[in-house]
Amino acid sequence: MATPEASLSEFTLIHTHFARLGSVRGDVIRGVGDDCALLRVPPEQELAISIDTLVAGIHFLAETDPHGLGHKCLAVGLSDLAAMGAAPAWATLALTLPAADEAWLGAFAEGFGTLAQAHGVALVGGDTTHGPLSITVQVHGLVPAGRAIRRSGARPGDLVCVSGTLGDAGLALRGLLAGDPVNGYLRARLERPTARVTLGLALRGLATAMIDISDGLAADLGHILEESASGRGLEADQIGAELRLADLPLSPQVRDAITRTQDWSLPLAAGDDYELCFTLPPDQRDKLAALSRRLDCPLTAIGRILDKTEGAAPMGLTCRGPDGTSWTPKYAGFNHFPGPD
Amino acid sequence: MATPEASLSEFTLIHTHFARLGSVRGDVIRGVGDDCALLRVPPEQELAISIDTLVAGIHFLAETDPHGLGHKCLAVGLSDLAAMGAAPAWATLALTLPAADEAWLGAFAEGFGTLAQAHGVALVGGDTTHGPLSITVQVHGLVPAGRAIRRSGARPGDLVCVSGTLGDAGLALRGLLAGDPVNGYLRARLERPTARVTLGLALRGLATAMIDISDGLAADLGHILEESASGRGLEADQIGAELRLADLPLSPQVRDAITRTQDWSLPLAAGDDYELCFTLPPDQRDKLAALSRRLDCPLTAIGRILDKTEGAAPMGLTCRGPDGTSWTPKYAGFNHFPGPD
Repeated sequence: MATPEASLSEFTLIHTHFARLGSVRGDVIRGVGDDCALLRVPPEQELAISIDTLVAGIHFLAETDPHGLGHKCLAVGLSDLAAMGAAPAWATLALTLPAADEAWLGAFAEGFGTLAQAHGVALVGGDTTHGPLSITVQVHGLVPAGRAIRRSGARPGDLVCVSGTLGDAGLALRGLLAGDPVNGYLRARLERPTARVTLGLALRGLATAMIDISDGLAADLGHILEESASGRGLEADQIGAELRLADLPLSPQVRDAITRTQDWSLPLAAGDDYELCFTLPPDQRDKLAALSRRLDCPLTAIGRILDKTEGAAPMGLTCRGPDGTSWTPKYAGFNHFPGPD
Repeated sequence: MATPEASLSEFTLIHTHFARLGSVRGDVIRGVGDDCALLRVPPEQELAISIDTLVAGIHFLAETDPHGLGHKCLAVGLSDLAAMGAAPAWATLALTLPAADEAWLGAFAEGFGTLAQAHGVALVGGDTTHGPLSITVQVHGLVPAGRAIRRSGARPGDLVCVSGTLGDAGLALRGLLAGDPVNGYLRARLERPTARVTLGLALRGLATAMIDISDGLAADLGHILEESASGRGLEADQIGAELRLADLPLSPQVRDAITRTQDWSLPLAAGDDYELCFTLPPDQRDKLAALSRRLDCPLTAIGRILDKTEGAAPMGLTCRGPDGTSWTPKYAGFNHFPGPD
């Protein structure tokens, strides 16, 4: 359904910009260039995979800097690997483009490739097609058998912890959509998120449950609660968590915005921060500060997991405000299919 | 950038329609429902992966039956596994939809699921997003270490063989685009292609090189020639192939169309047939007929691989017509980025 006989074929495109990203690992038996890539998984390791699509106008503004976009589409996947405690290995990239824009592709590949190289990730396969701008990346990581950190291991009494600061990406997006100036720090938090890969690996054997914050803290911590309840054969309302909002790690910009508006949705629901939310047995609390120093990454205990004998029914997520009031956040997180209400 | 608080969340959508497709294999340690799927690759096996995107208006007509589309987006990937001689294991599905249409999703999942079940494929991960209709599937297969059939192993003297018939999908698409009636056989060949998985497995240790015909025979056989030349340290013009057009396996419909127009582009360049093209040492010719009977799949020798001492320079692909004339096909295959000429 497209015209054959092109001067710049999809093969040339892929080759020109992405070929150099393929040959950095000994476990790639065959990368780009055959019907399939061929890969070697060591016998004592499990394969961890995650696929994510970023669509122009939904996940990013169409005019977004392609270098940042190349970074972000890979960072989103690396963040999923981090959240399992898996070490990144390989990526595939399915790119749908409205036109074969060499400058755009060059910048995109540079952003993707720089991050891939930093984490020793080989690009082993892909597909380039014509259509509305959209990027799908699948990441593949390795984790020693049985040692992946799942969402389902949180237990009553565990501390709820997060890395970095929350709400920065949401504040940046809000500014961009309003046409306001957005400073470099916030913009980088939105467009070049840091996947907490080293932290994820360091939390193996320490965290009881983990998730990355892509949909917002409330929704993502909610997933930990749901999975941890069902993992123990409980109903979802038999486990809960209490968050102390005064303890949420916030940048000065987000703190100012909340002070002005009293609206906590930025750190609780805006998402796109790609920080890790994890639970930690209370007797491991002392390790948090040392780990934070060693990794040069803020780590903050912001609440704890409750069981049904504590707090008010129904269980679920409870926020305790700085003034002592408590409430249940309504935020459902980012959702691509808004319903009629 | 989308409204939060939905009545029908992406999680519910995925869950409702795809959850049942996940739990069919013992090597899936964790499927859908965490940050990553966790999978087990046996130590003596290599992992074969391939990712493909189908975009509405480019790869299929927007009004295409969703059941067929669910089938086709998986069949395209299974065909890549077949072309390496890999056994299908797992799939991930990234679905971008303009709206959360329950009926569409149900039919799509049914088409996808029926084919997945037939090949023992577990759906282990996915992403559902809002945007212009587009489907990305990654397939994952297993092949005993060192036994994958690559594009690069063709040798002068080898027979060039294909499965099935060629040009049916192209003829169907031509009819649909022209608004002509298209009969059920042709339509099924376009919309529900058969991935030749069993054939791919049976050709391990027999075929010297293999590719699936997605871009058209001329382009895809061209890839075998390029890879087989570079695999032996030769220039691309030091290896070639001769095709005997009279021997191409054609359905009566495609044969009629060629008789009317004398245009061989349907079997040579239309693509989308997802048959396998493979090369076979000449002393294995006798096995072709037996294999064809055993698998109930037409297998036809249509030409042979040449080296530079044979035929006219430059090497590459030569077609010998039924009338004895020879020419080099210009067809570049399907290309998504037509250039200025």
